[in-house]
Amino acid sequence: VDFRFSTGLKVRFAETDAQGVAHNAVYLVWFEIARIDYLARFRGGYPGLRAEGIEALTIESHVRYLTPVRFDDRLTIRARCGELRGARFRFDYVIDRDDGGERVADGWTRHACVDGRNYRPIRVPVWLAEAIATAEA
Amino acid sequence: VDFRFSTGLKVRFAETDAQGVAHNAVYLVWFEIARIDYLARFRGGYPGLRAEGIEALTIESHVRYLTPVRFDDRLTIRARCGELRGARFRFDYVIDRDDGGERVADGWTRHACVDGRNYRPIRVPVWLAEAIATAEA
Amino acid sequence: VDFRFSTGLKVRFAETDAQGVAHNAVYLVWFEIARIDYLARFRGGYPGLRAEGIEALTIESHVRYLTPVRFDDRLTIRARCGELRGARFRFDYVIDRDDGGERVADGWTRHACVDGRNYRPIRVPVWLAEAIATAEA
Amino acid sequence: VDFRFSTGLKVRFAETDAQGVAHNAVYLVWFEIARIDYLARFRGGYPGLRAEGIEALTIESHVRYLTPVRFDDRLTIRARCGELRGARFRFDYVIDRDDGGERVADGWTRHACVDGRNYRPIRVPVWLAEAIATAEA
Repeated sequence: VDFRFSTGLKVRFAETDAQGVAHNAVYLVWFEIARIDYLARFRGGYPGLRAEGIEALTIESHVRYLTPVRFDDRLTIRARCGELRGARFRFDYVIDRDDGGERVADGWTRHACVDGRNYRPIRVPVWLAEAIATAEA
Repeated sequence: VDFRFSTGLKVRFAETDAQGVAHNAVYLVWFEIARIDYLARFRGGYPGLRAEGIEALTIESHVRYLTPVRFDDRLTIRARCGELRGARFRFDYVIDRDDGGERVADGWTRHACVDGRNYRPIRVPVWLAEAIATAEA
Repeated sequence: VDFRFSTGLKVRFAETDAQGVAHNAVYLVWFEIARIDYLARFRGGYPGLRAEGIEALTIESHVRYLTPVRFDDRLTIRARCGELRGARFRFDYVIDRDDGGERVADGWTRHACVDGRNYRPIRVPVWLAEAIATAEA
Repeated sequence: VDFRFSTGLKVRFAETDAQGVAHNAVYLVWFEIARIDYLARFRGGYPGLRAEGIEALTIESHVRYLTPVRFDDRLTIRARCGELRGARFRFDYVIDRDDGGERVADGWTRHACVDGRNYRPIRVPVWLAEAIATAEA
């Protein structure tokens, strides 16, 4: 499958643990960074969604840790969005080490838009659904 | 399915995010706490494993976020270990809110024991496999 | 000086870094836990403050790291509150290792109460000032 | 006083808390990022130090939080190193918001080089002391 979007980051020292590698929970933070950078291309992006009173909750996450990464490793996260249906959507991710290009992790997250006042499900705004459809077409 | 082990925690303020709820990555930290408390009952537990030169890597994680939790919520995490085969094992988790007993999340993680010096797979030590088999029997 | 309040915690694996010790930023999380536990003894405590529309901002922090702590170390944090003046107050902390009683860190934080709607300074509520005065007397 | 080095970052969603602003502990992570980027200009930088068997411990930290920062804010951290004496050195930092240039925080950290095997103090390597002296001259 194809990824048309990517963003880069460098493993922070604070993200490592006593095994000398990035801690397993940090990958979900990295997925979120990719997701936010992905959405930032469309009208206000994620802060714009929030300004409209919409929160995007994470309702499921999955990570496969393929090979450990270490402090100062430069990584590229590719992300793609799909399965938009009503309030829901899904992101897929792969993470590669820049040096050597090795795949270090992959995974996906599922999300639901909710009304920020009452946390009731609310449809993904049309402008966002269309922007994503165009970006992924 | 049955969970014979549980541990409790309280949501820290630092674990919340600007949505006012616990951040999605934190659940993997909570799963880890449950896993470590689970293993602590057997011979030095996880620190004991590490003292033998064995690291237990997380190779896959999965979380379903069922309902958001907030600062100061008291949670109970139930955990169970299984699928021990060679170097590998799996933990399952459910998280319930103490107040009301609502299920707030569930998930699982898969792990592999490796030699701490070279990160090569190494069998789960017999003492640990037997202790887990007894605990879950 | 005297500390009449203490709370305990155990170093989480996720709190360690590749130096094999607890990361320096985590101590501010521990100070916050002590602060919240300290306030929890008085009327709704910190969640109660927030329910009244008051946020307590951290405006300054100081930590001295005396000796590294490791995964699974049990620690006791002593805390004391003082210097209440208008919107402001200060907490002092010491952290000792349970095993051996060694002092591992100390520090302090300064805080200001603000109105949660506009972030303007607002006096520490009388009930809280009095409860703290009584507790520290 | 003068800062000749700066690095940029964007506030992550995971770095915010339920007050809607970046959590106070995160500033120490940002200081560390600036410190590591600062050192990265000199022979292998901080990973290079570690490869020589030297760990740089944080022995004291101080932060003044001047105005809250929010998700997605772009910040510039200026850093400078000084007070090299034997095993010890100190970093000073200021953090400004890119949009408007407002000062949002300042602070400093003190550090000690130790031998990675026994955690005994060890002099700052000459190559590093000279590189810093030149950079700050």
